[in-house]
Amino acid sequence: MATKYVYLFREGNASMRDLLGGKGAGLAEMTGIGAPVPPGFTITTEACNYYSANDDFPAGLLDQVFEALRDVEQATGKRFGDAENPLLVSVRSGAKFSMPGMMDTVLNLGLNAETKAALARLTGDQRFANDAYRRFIQLFGKIVLGVDGDRFEHVMDEVKAGREDQELSPDELNAIAARFKDIVRQDAGVEFPDDPVEQLKAAIIAVFKSWNGRRAVDYRRLNKISDSLGTAVNVQTMVFGNLGETSATGVAFSRNPSTGEKRLYGEYLINAQGEDVVAGIRTPRPISELEREMPDVYQQFITIANQLEAHYKDVQDMEFTVERGRLYMLQTRTGKRTGFAAVRIAVEMANEGVIDQATAVRRVEPAALDQLLHPTLKPEARAAAHLLARGLPASPGAATGKVVFDPDEAEQLASTGEMVILVRPETAPEDFHGMVAAQAVLTARGGMTSHAAVVARGMGKPCVAGASELRIDVAAGRFAANGTTINKGDYITVDGSTGDVLEGHIETEDPELSGDFEMLMEWADGFRQVKVRTNADTPNDASTARGFGAEGIGLCRTEHMFFEGSRIDAVREMIVAETQEERRAALAKIEPYQREDFAGIFRAMDGFPVTIRTLDPPLHEFLPHADEEIHDLAAKMGVAFGVLKGKIEALREANPMLGFRGCRLGMVYPEITEMQARAIFTAAKQVRAEGVTVLPEVMIPLVQTPEELENQGNIVRRMAEEVGFDGEYMVGTMIELPRAALMAGKIAEIAEFFSFGTNDLTQTAMGISRDDSGRFVPAYVERKVFPDDPFQVLDQEGVGQLVEIGTERGRATRPNLKVGVCGEHGGDPASVNFFVRTGLDYVSCSPYRVPIARLAAAQAALGEVVRDK
Amino acid sequence: MATKYVYLFREGNASMRDLLGGKGAGLAEMTGIGAPVPPGFTITTEACNYYSANDDFPAGLLDQVFEALRDVEQATGKRFGDAENPLLVSVRSGAKFSMPGMMDTVLNLGLNAETKAALARLTGDQRFANDAYRRFIQLFGKIVLGVDGDRFEHVMDEVKAGREDQELSPDELNAIAARFKDIVRQDAGVEFPDDPVEQLKAAIIAVFKSWNGRRAVDYRRLNKISDSLGTAVNVQTMVFGNLGETSATGVAFSRNPSTGEKRLYGEYLINAQGEDVVAGIRTPRPISELEREMPDVYQQFITIANQLEAHYKDVQDMEFTVERGRLYMLQTRTGKRTGFAAVRIAVEMANEGVIDQATAVRRVEPAALDQLLHPTLKPEARAAAHLLARGLPASPGAATGKVVFDPDEAEQLASTGEMVILVRPETAPEDFHGMVAAQAVLTARGGMTSHAAVVARGMGKPCVAGASELRIDVAAGRFAANGTTINKGDYITVDGSTGDVLEGHIETEDPELSGDFEMLMEWADGFRQVKVRTNADTPNDASTARGFGAEGIGLCRTEHMFFEGSRIDAVREMIVAETQEERRAALAKIEPYQREDFAGIFRAMDGFPVTIRTLDPPLHEFLPHADEEIHDLAAKMGVAFGVLKGKIEALREANPMLGFRGCRLGMVYPEITEMQARAIFTAAKQVRAEGVTVLPEVMIPLVQTPEELENQGNIVRRMAEEVGFDGEYMVGTMIELPRAALMAGKIAEIAEFFSFGTNDLTQTAMGISRDDSGRFVPAYVERKVFPDDPFQVLDQEGVGQLVEIGTERGRATRPNLKVGVCGEHGGDPASVNFFVRTGLDYVSCSPYRVPIARLAAAQAALGEVVRDK
Repeated sequence: MATKYVYLFREGNASMRDLLGGKGAGLAEMTGIGAPVPPGFTITTEACNYYSANDDFPAGLLDQVFEALRDVEQATGKRFGDAENPLLVSVRSGAKFSMPGMMDTVLNLGLNAETKAALARLTGDQRFANDAYRRFIQLFGKIVLGVDGDRFEHVMDEVKAGREDQELSPDELNAIAARFKDIVRQDAGVEFPDDPVEQLKAAIIAVFKSWNGRRAVDYRRLNKISDSLGTAVNVQTMVFGNLGETSATGVAFSRNPSTGEKRLYGEYLINAQGEDVVAGIRTPRPISELEREMPDVYQQFITIANQLEAHYKDVQDMEFTVERGRLYMLQTRTGKRTGFAAVRIAVEMANEGVIDQATAVRRVEPAALDQLLHPTLKPEARAAAHLLARGLPASPGAATGKVVFDPDEAEQLASTGEMVILVRPETAPEDFHGMVAAQAVLTARGGMTSHAAVVARGMGKPCVAGASELRIDVAAGRFAANGTTINKGDYITVDGSTGDVLEGHIETEDPELSGDFEMLMEWADGFRQVKVRTNADTPNDASTARGFGAEGIGLCRTEHMFFEGSRIDAVREMIVAETQEERRAALAKIEPYQREDFAGIFRAMDGFPVTIRTLDPPLHEFLPHADEEIHDLAAKMGVAFGVLKGKIEALREANPMLGFRGCRLGMVYPEITEMQARAIFTAAKQVRAEGVTVLPEVMIPLVQTPEELENQGNIVRRMAEEVGFDGEYMVGTMIELPRAALMAGKIAEIAEFFSFGTNDLTQTAMGISRDDSGRFVPAYVERKVFPDDPFQVLDQEGVGQLVEIGTERGRATRPNLKVGVCGEHGGDPASVNFFVRTGLDYVSCSPYRVPIARLAAAQAALGEVVRDK
Repeated sequence: MATKYVYLFREGNASMRDLLGGKGAGLAEMTGIGAPVPPGFTITTEACNYYSANDDFPAGLLDQVFEALRDVEQATGKRFGDAENPLLVSVRSGAKFSMPGMMDTVLNLGLNAETKAALARLTGDQRFANDAYRRFIQLFGKIVLGVDGDRFEHVMDEVKAGREDQELSPDELNAIAARFKDIVRQDAGVEFPDDPVEQLKAAIIAVFKSWNGRRAVDYRRLNKISDSLGTAVNVQTMVFGNLGETSATGVAFSRNPSTGEKRLYGEYLINAQGEDVVAGIRTPRPISELEREMPDVYQQFITIANQLEAHYKDVQDMEFTVERGRLYMLQTRTGKRTGFAAVRIAVEMANEGVIDQATAVRRVEPAALDQLLHPTLKPEARAAAHLLARGLPASPGAATGKVVFDPDEAEQLASTGEMVILVRPETAPEDFHGMVAAQAVLTARGGMTSHAAVVARGMGKPCVAGASELRIDVAAGRFAANGTTINKGDYITVDGSTGDVLEGHIETEDPELSGDFEMLMEWADGFRQVKVRTNADTPNDASTARGFGAEGIGLCRTEHMFFEGSRIDAVREMIVAETQEERRAALAKIEPYQREDFAGIFRAMDGFPVTIRTLDPPLHEFLPHADEEIHDLAAKMGVAFGVLKGKIEALREANPMLGFRGCRLGMVYPEITEMQARAIFTAAKQVRAEGVTVLPEVMIPLVQTPEELENQGNIVRRMAEEVGFDGEYMVGTMIELPRAALMAGKIAEIAEFFSFGTNDLTQTAMGISRDDSGRFVPAYVERKVFPDDPFQVLDQEGVGQLVEIGTERGRATRPNLKVGVCGEHGGDPASVNFFVRTGLDYVSCSPYRVPIARLAAAQAALGEVVRDK
């Protein structure tokens, strides 16, 4: 039997995307459920592939096309090329995935002098017919025959002489058509085809050829789409929304895509074509007015919309045309929606019984929850705002305030009730108090996991990082961005969800966590299997996260406490100490603070495990760098300025990320680990006496040999014993170096748990400093060398292998090894999906991402697979 | 049958190290070949293990001991504990590997009042007998009974009252023995045992227990030696070298261990015990004098030495004692030797037919060749020198000269014929000319692969790096080291083979490459299977390496050429260019230099492949940092100081090692790759026209995705075509990121060769910046957390996995993929051994390490396996 290359719309269905393309499958499905779709047919992707390989149609294709055409003729009562009642068609490409470079739609195919006359007769509108023919020549000439479109535009402009299209007379349109044909003759070297069959064949070939056009090929290559998919061709009866006051065209959603409200939402234009709605020349009317203007059509549309929504079990985004009072459906697809709408729609549809809870949980993009958790810009205000620059969307939410460059000043201004935005070239731990005081943080340098980004996310505060177009002059108190200068005290607005930096005070609106949200999260938790913990360094963060559903702390960074108040002085003394005695003396000053902080965190996480990481960052980070500050510290410590400066200089490192940090500190200065462990277990013992259920998990960072973990773990265990803590606790390690993942089998002989530190694992495996990534990673992402910023979305293909290897080898040694992740990726939906598939026990993320992780984990449990793009 | 726990010396042999320990197996082997070994027996390690597990002797052990003792009695004609002719024995521990914390030797066991009297009668020397008893009580008390040794010393000092041991009278010695017994009674709470059998049993138990002593256990843990090996116990008839003028003791080598000369080499003392030779109280005489003093003994010793050497087929290091004219052999083992001696001995023994060529090649430690290739300090001069500080032995060889701190000054002084040592906190590319001018380089910061180290090794110039005890004050023109201040112009001497920094002008001696060396290398090349290439950046380096046998260039760093002369100005212009046009203009200035350099290198490597790496380091490295220099550059470029400074500041990176470098530069600025590729192929075409056989291999650095390599490779291929180079060439990549190794299968779809950049691979896999490693890696090595500095010796267990994975996956995709290594490890013998086992095609190392790599590769081909310690 001959291969079937042509499917009438009524012969296909939604499952045939591979063969019919997305558009063809959709039209077929709509036809199948009885929606009034203008009749037509689809030529399969297989025919395209044959054409690509052989530069010729496959045998039988044209016969099948003509047969389908006869079927359409019967359905419409028109005939293709007929001088009495001609059938006009549109020809559209339609691959499985839409992509740029594919052929544009040719409308009104089938017109020539004869059929144009018939069209004029049938519509009683000579101007309409002449314009339709003019448009057809222009589209066909440009798209199918490859004539430069500017040549046609030039003629149009000349004849219009400043008038609008609509003001052209029928004769003028005829004259234009004639000149268009001349252009075709000159440029394409062919006579414009009058024969509709020739027109159709040429259009089909043009669609096939566009599959292998430069732009489409480049796009597929970049997006790793197979060249062998091919494109389908859709041939459909033309309908016209511009045939007078009883005609119209519009688009509508079956529910409100902004709010989720269950009510038709959309707009339409009387006497217009589809492109006019998009072009925005005339202002469309809200769909509700259609009820008054065309009550029957409206009722029919409502019915169809409900039917489509019920059929697809999701909100539909529909295109329709009314031709002289008769409704035609041209397209339906799943409607895009805001996070708010997504949650409401999912929950309501589940409650309506349209979908089940699992589907509702699957229906909401986890990342979309960000909108529900953070302030957003008012859309109108945003639209009118002046964009100063764009940086990385480092911590979501929008905020507005006065620009300050100095953290002390930020603190002082904020204390007087001012809203401020802290603007810095980059932030360091010593800027912490300024970040606390500010509404939002903006930096010119640093990536998604820079200090500013990490701290801001932890505080749930908006942050735009790495806005490299900013030229900040801290001393002068101003910054320049693309020609605009902003001075200290001027208002700016930052949107940490998009990375936008806007001039002036732009209004924001606060989110409200709806009952729908709570319901959805409850359903999600019903499916979720991995635990979701939080990264929190203070009792306050811990409480916030618990409110969002965190089930413990996956990462408490002990050093984030070091900058508060006067503690930093003791920390600095500890660092510059020359002897162990001096160091112990300084540590003794820090210990009470640590103990108190730990006690507060344990209380906030009563009943849940708390993973505390021992000191990790390079010591140099805690030291002052300006001479002034060094002078102050030297005076406080009673040492000479030169000595202290020399000491600080000696601690400087070429690549601090790969330097003297992590467990290396504790290996060389065991007294630091001793102090921290003692503080942990003293606090644990104390809160336990208060009746708090405390489950400390002490985590040693940057381990890569079992010896390191054994050495540091022994110190921790000795301290637990000395303190007399008799509760349960664990000692484990971060796996954040490639070598640690490779050696996981041996490390697990010592470790009771693993926590993948995917930030540092990404930095080392890929050789990319997150703080320096701004100079090439954006270019890499844009050119698809990387599918995503690897500090936002885990590089599953590469870094992911190390997570898999580490987990597998660790569990081979210790089958009950608890394995989690505490990098920034713990709050990224695609990454969470990967972690669930890899079999991790928990993910940990910043407090405000906990709901996102819960939802992503539930979806993963429901079998969703999200891979690297 | 009962387990055999006791072996007479004549029952064992050299292969029984596991059971008899190293010492026992050696004594057995010597006995077996008829050497005059004092009779004795060995208690097996199995007995020790039984004792460790059960805290008791295994059944039958004592019976076997007494039986063996009877055999010894028969052989010696003495009887254990006999009042007429008593047998005295030594008791020694002897595990498979010698280790600290094992029991010291107990001598003269079997003495008590009765046997002592017999000994005095038999020797006719009351004082000797009394002293022997005093020594026995002291040793036994301390070693077996655990009495604090100081207690005995204290008594000795008291009685001697300033006199020497020898001046003590027989009565005084008796009195001391009595007081020693009192101490034992008080401290150990037991009566000193008179019964020789009790003494023997106690000594055996003490040996067994020492196996599980704290020091031994710690040592084994640190060195990964199994606790289940156990130790053997050697019980041997005492012989005395201190029984008058016909007695003697000494040590000798069968050949000269310094020069390799085939002649007995050693020294001896008349009327002395073994420990006296070592203690150095009296000056021993050269062994040749023994011929005159004891001609018969000498002849017998010569015969035995020859016999042992012939038996073991290697130089023997022997201990002997002459008791009243009778020769006894106490130990023989393989003699340690210098690199010079090792080569001469191996070649001569092979020529003598003692060993075959393969054995000769195996016999020489590759690292020992360093001595033959670099100047060394005269040993006497070294011994007398004052050690100022010790750093890392970063580039071998010794050199002396005047201290200079400034590279310009070094150049200027050197041009007047002065020998200078360049001393810097650390070096940067802009110090290059100063390094060229200097005899050697000394830095306070940086590791084995710091800039100073890498460049110095490339030049074959001594370098001591990371001498962190130095406090360098460049401005003041001096440095302080452990209390000594050295000023500019003072002489110092550095030994890059040991890391020593010495005060003053210490004489060095130049090596001479002997015919033996050439012969050995020829033999080695006969066995070797992998190629040995060199890392060379200049025609001169390339020629040097070729002289050492390099078979091509594995790594030519294009950027090392950037600093010569005025080129750096053009390079800097290129870096700070704001537009592509400016950048192209600057690149056009650099291109002729590059072309010329490449042409010179191609000529030097006529017939061999030359791997050229495209630009790799972070651009910031090439920029000036001092305001002065920035002013100069700004003036030259005609831009404002502030603008240039801002630009330089903007290029600063937090972790340049993980920053904007490698192929990332070429991805963002393709015109750089274009220029370099054009220079390569223009040069290649030119020298090809001259008749040179040129095989360029263009290597793209820091690749981790196939897209990067494809992008850069396409540029390279396009340039080859544009230039019209029609010879063979390849495009490949460095594998120097963990992700690259993991993705090797996909990268090999594009890459024609891989070269493992194990320096960066080590930095990233282990998360250690080589420049910052000084603060903890030495401590890690000392504590055996790392077996070696991973930048010197490849971390086979961890980083090695990535080399294996990369090779395996790359070859799975492309079976004929050429795979090499160009990190510093390419010149390290253990690492070369690993690379050969992993199946690499070539290793590449700095010119002066080429012979070492050749030898190591030959040994690997001969099946030697060198693993991580």
